[in-house]
Amino acid sequence: MLSSPLLSPEISAGKRAVSRCDSLGVPPFSDTQTGLFRAYLSPAHAATLEQVGVWMRESGMSTRIDAAGNLIGHYDGLSPDAPILLIGSHLDTVLNAGRYDGALGVMLGVEVVSFFHKQKKRFPFAIDVIGFGDEEGSRFPVAMLTSRAVAGALEALPSALHDAANISLQDALRENHLDPARYMKAAMPPGKVLAYLEAHIEQGPVLDTLGEATGIVTAIAAQHRYRVIITGEAGHAGTIPMSLRHDALAAAAEAILAIERTANEGPPDLVATVGQLELEPGAPNVVPGCVRLSIDVRAGSDTVRDQGAAQIRAQLEALAGRRGVSIAIQRQHDLPATPCDPQLTALLARSAQRINGSEPHFLVSGAGHDAMIMAALAPVCMVFIRCHKGISHNPAESVTAADAEKAFEIMVDFIISFSEKNETEQES
Amino acid sequence: MLSSPLLSPEISAGKRAVSRCDSLGVPPFSDTQTGLFRAYLSPAHAATLEQVGVWMRESGMSTRIDAAGNLIGHYDGLSPDAPILLIGSHLDTVLNAGRYDGALGVMLGVEVVSFFHKQKKRFPFAIDVIGFGDEEGSRFPVAMLTSRAVAGALEALPSALHDAANISLQDALRENHLDPARYMKAAMPPGKVLAYLEAHIEQGPVLDTLGEATGIVTAIAAQHRYRVIITGEAGHAGTIPMSLRHDALAAAAEAILAIERTANEGPPDLVATVGQLELEPGAPNVVPGCVRLSIDVRAGSDTVRDQGAAQIRAQLEALAGRRGVSIAIQRQHDLPATPCDPQLTALLARSAQRINGSEPHFLVSGAGHDAMIMAALAPVCMVFIRCHKGISHNPAESVTAADAEKAFEIMVDFIISFSEKNETEQES
Repeated sequence: MLSSPLLSPEISAGKRAVSRCDSLGVPPFSDTQTGLFRAYLSPAHAATLEQVGVWMRESGMSTRIDAAGNLIGHYDGLSPDAPILLIGSHLDTVLNAGRYDGALGVMLGVEVVSFFHKQKKRFPFAIDVIGFGDEEGSRFPVAMLTSRAVAGALEALPSALHDAANISLQDALRENHLDPARYMKAAMPPGKVLAYLEAHIEQGPVLDTLGEATGIVTAIAAQHRYRVIITGEAGHAGTIPMSLRHDALAAAAEAILAIERTANEGPPDLVATVGQLELEPGAPNVVPGCVRLSIDVRAGSDTVRDQGAAQIRAQLEALAGRRGVSIAIQRQHDLPATPCDPQLTALLARSAQRINGSEPHFLVSGAGHDAMIMAALAPVCMVFIRCHKGISHNPAESVTAADAEKAFEIMVDFIISFSEKNETEQES
Repeated sequence: MLSSPLLSPEISAGKRAVSRCDSLGVPPFSDTQTGLFRAYLSPAHAATLEQVGVWMRESGMSTRIDAAGNLIGHYDGLSPDAPILLIGSHLDTVLNAGRYDGALGVMLGVEVVSFFHKQKKRFPFAIDVIGFGDEEGSRFPVAMLTSRAVAGALEALPSALHDAANISLQDALRENHLDPARYMKAAMPPGKVLAYLEAHIEQGPVLDTLGEATGIVTAIAAQHRYRVIITGEAGHAGTIPMSLRHDALAAAAEAILAIERTANEGPPDLVATVGQLELEPGAPNVVPGCVRLSIDVRAGSDTVRDQGAAQIRAQLEALAGRRGVSIAIQRQHDLPATPCDPQLTALLARSAQRINGSEPHFLVSGAGHDAMIMAALAPVCMVFIRCHKGISHNPAESVTAADAEKAFEIMVDFIISFSEKNETEQES
C-alpha cells in the first residue's frame, strides 16, 4: 500500500486526486512494466481495487467489490435506507494509456466524500463512489460491460468472450473470486439511484483551446459508423489516359472531401471522420480498382447526425454517378445520443458558474462514457476536465492539479445544491 | 513439340501468331498449372525457347541462344556480313499473365520472316528475330535485364540478385547451361543493327476506344515516381471538432484530386496516378495522423512530365500550408522519355496508312518496353496492337487474329519500304 503523504491537509483535493492517478500509473497497478495498461480482472486491476479501497476507507466509506468486479465505496446517508447519489468512472485503461482517463473521475469522487466526511456532513442520500471494472474493452472484446451490469442493461453475461491469451471471461472472473453465475446481481435496483455524476477528462482539445478548466456535458454523441466500398476499374498507370479512367481512389478522395465539407458546414457538434482506408491492388503503377473506407459520423443529437449522414450519402451517390464507379454503403453501428439529464445538468452548470465565476462552456461528448450506459438506470450529468492539447489514450495525457481542483469544487457544490433542491422539492 | 496444323497455308499469319501465343499459354510453356507464368530461366522458359526455335527454323531461320538466354532467329541477308534489322519482344510473362504481352511480337517477327522466306526474298540486311528472356523482371527483382545486355547498356551482371526461392541469377544461368562470366557477350556490336522494330499489344484502352486495330508509337513515356509522406495530427474521431483537426487523410484527398486535375488539364499524354496509399493509425474512430502515398507521373516528353510534376508539387505545398500539415516529397524513379526514331516511325506510319487505308493513330507508350532499352543500340520503332478493353497482365488479355494480321502486314510493308529507302539512300 502507498503511504499517505497525499493525505497531508496542505495538499489540495485536486492535487491529491491527480497524484493518486500518477501513483496508479506504474506496477503493480499497471500490467506492463513501461506504459500504463490496466486490464479488467487483471493482476494490476486487483491491486488497484485494493489500493483505491484503502483510500475510500480512509475517506469514511465502507467498501465492497460487486458481482461484476466493480469497486464501490459507500458513504452513509442520514438514514440506513437512504437512496444513493452515485459518483463514478472507470479504473481500467487502454494499452499504453494516459493516467487520468477514468481514474481521475474515481479519485475525485473519493475526494468529495472525504471532504464531507471531514466535515461530518451527511445527506438525505448516501454517496456511493464506483470504480467501474471495464469501460475500455480493455481485456475482452466488449466495452462498458460493467456499467451495463450495474445499470441492469445487460440481458446475460456474454458466454463466448475470450481475451488475447484465450482465457474466457468466466475463467477470469473465477480467478478473481467472482462467480460468473452471479454477474447480473451487480444490477442496482431501479429507483435506488437518484443521480449519477461523472467527472472525466475531455479527451479532446476544446477546453484547452478555449482556456477553460472545465466544461459541462450536454449529451454523449449519437454515432453512425459506415463501411463504404467504392468499385472502379483497375488498370495500368501508364497506359490508361485520364479520360478513360474510373479511379476508385480519386472517387474516394472526392468522397473524403465531401464528408469533411458536410461536417465543416454543419452545426459545431457534427463531426465526420474517415479513419480507415484500404485500396486494391495498391501498387504505384496501377490505377486503384477498389477502395474500402470507414465513415464515423457523430453529433449531439440523433437529428443532426442523421441529417449529416443523409447529406454525405447523397453526395457519395452523386459522385459515383459522375465518375462511373459504384459505391456500396453499409451502416455498421447506430448509437443514439444520450442526453444528459437537463435538470441535473442545469444544476451542475450553476455550480460551475459559481466556482469559475463565469458561464460554463457546454459541450457534447464525442467519446462514449459509463454515463451513457448509466442513463438507463438514473438521470446522469457529467463534468469534463481540460486535458493538455486534448491528448488522451497516450502516455502524454496531462491534467493540472488546479483544473482537477475546480472539478472537485464543482462536484462538492453540486452535491450541496442537489441536496438543497431535493429538500425544497420534498417540502413543497 | 507442337505439330503444325498452324502452318497450314489457309491460316493467316495473324491467326497463326495468335494461336501460337495461345498454345504457349499452358504447361510445359507455363511454370504454373493454371494461369500463365513464364519466368526468365525457368523450365517453362526453356521449353518455350525450344518450341519457338522449332517455329523459327521452320520459317527459314537459323537459331541460337545468346549468352543472356535470349533466343535469336537469323534470316540471312544478301551477303554474309550484312547488317541486321532486328525484330523483337520478350518471351517472359508476369504471374497470372495474358498470353500476348511480349510473345505476340516475337510470333509476328517469325511470321514476317516466314513470309519473305516463302517468297525467297532476301534483303541487303539480315533479319534477326529476338525473343528476350527478361522484360518483366519475372524472376529476379530487375526488369529488362536481357535487352540491356544485348544493347550493351549493362555495365556488369548484377551479383546480388536472388529469386523468391533464394536461387541466385548466376546459379539460374548455370542451370540453363549459360556461363555467368560470358553474360556481357550478349551485347550486339554497335553499328551492326540498322533498326529495331517491336510489335506489342497496347496494354491500354486507347486503340480499342478509337476502334483502331493498330497504332504507331511516338515515344515511350518519361516517368517520375514520388513517395509522399503527409503528417498531420492523429486524434479521437469523436472529441476533436472539425475546426481543430489536421487530418492527414483529408489533406491526402485534396492532394489526390489536385494530382488528377493537373493531369486532366494537361496535354493528353500526361497521366498521373496515386496507386498506393497507407494511413496511420488506421482505425475508424481515429482521425488519421499520417498518410504515405505514391505518385506516378508520365508523359511523352520529359518537358511535359516535368511541368506536370512541378505543378503537382506546388499544389501539394500550398495545401500543406492551408491545412497545417507537413508534406515530404521524395523522388524515387526518374526515367527519361525514349523517343522512337522519327524517320523509322514515319516509315512505319506510312506502312500503316497503306495497310489500313487511313491515317494511323499516334500514341505514347505509358508502359516500358524492350524498345526503350534497345534505343541505346539502334534507332527503334514500335507498332501497337489493340487489345480488348486495354486489359493486360491478366488472363483476360485478348487480341483478335484480324488485328494481329494488320500488324503483320504493316511490318512486312515496313521492311520492304525500309529496304527500298536504304537502297535509294545508297544510290543517291
